[in-house]
Amino acid sequence: MGFREHLEDVCRAEGAVAASVMGFDGIPLDTVTSAETDVDLDALLVELSGMLKDLRAAAGRLQTGEVGEVSIGTERLTAILRPLNPEFFVVLAMRPDGNYGKGRYLLRVAAPRLQGEF
Amino acid sequence: MGFREHLEDVCRAEGAVAASVMGFDGIPLDTVTSAETDVDLDALLVELSGMLKDLRAAAGRLQTGEVGEVSIGTERLTAILRPLNPEFFVVLAMRPDGNYGKGRYLLRVAAPRLQGEF
Repeated sequence: MGFREHLEDVCRAEGAVAASVMGFDGIPLDTVTSAETDVDLDALLVELSGMLKDLRAAAGRLQTGEVGEVSIGTERLTAILRPLNPEFFVVLAMRPDGNYGKGRYLLRVAAPRLQGEF
Repeated sequence: MGFREHLEDVCRAEGAVAASVMGFDGIPLDTVTSAETDVDLDALLVELSGMLKDLRAAAGRLQTGEVGEVSIGTERLTAILRPLNPEFFVVLAMRPDGNYGKGRYLLRVAAPRLQGEF
């Protein structure tokens, strides 16, 4: 399997809009889109990569240990993120009324598999 | 009831470490601590307030609608945050093995009550 197949798996969560493996530099490695949205996903992913980078730096300063899962809910979209390695992370964007629990679960299962693809 | 009673309610989640009403300027309005931790909570709360402020700005740029719930998991601590109004937010810090679902639920219930205290 490649990145794409794992991302398609993650998108099985009801309400999934897109899943992506992204670099912390904001450049996507692979993206699977599973539903339409009027949110600018590309811009969102770049913002999220910057935020996650800042969070990791903060976690280092505060010695809280590695950042695991981060989720951000807004009125129009929920994003769940997981770092994969020092350079890349995976993100699932969902509708706010999507199956958040299943999204979290599928992402947690996919993360080690995605790590194995690097 | 005041802020403190609502924060104590939130801390009923198993594994809760502290709950706080914080300004986006990083200054806490009230904090309830329910368990010991070797993480520097004061520094953590300041970092989180900065991050949440950045997130709201990004949400504005991307027109995703208001930021609702944000959660950040690290190896030693999980934080769940909810904006209350343009100046303040509430945050629950938990052990990573704490009852995350209950923490989310109690925070969601407490948010409108806390809003009513301003």
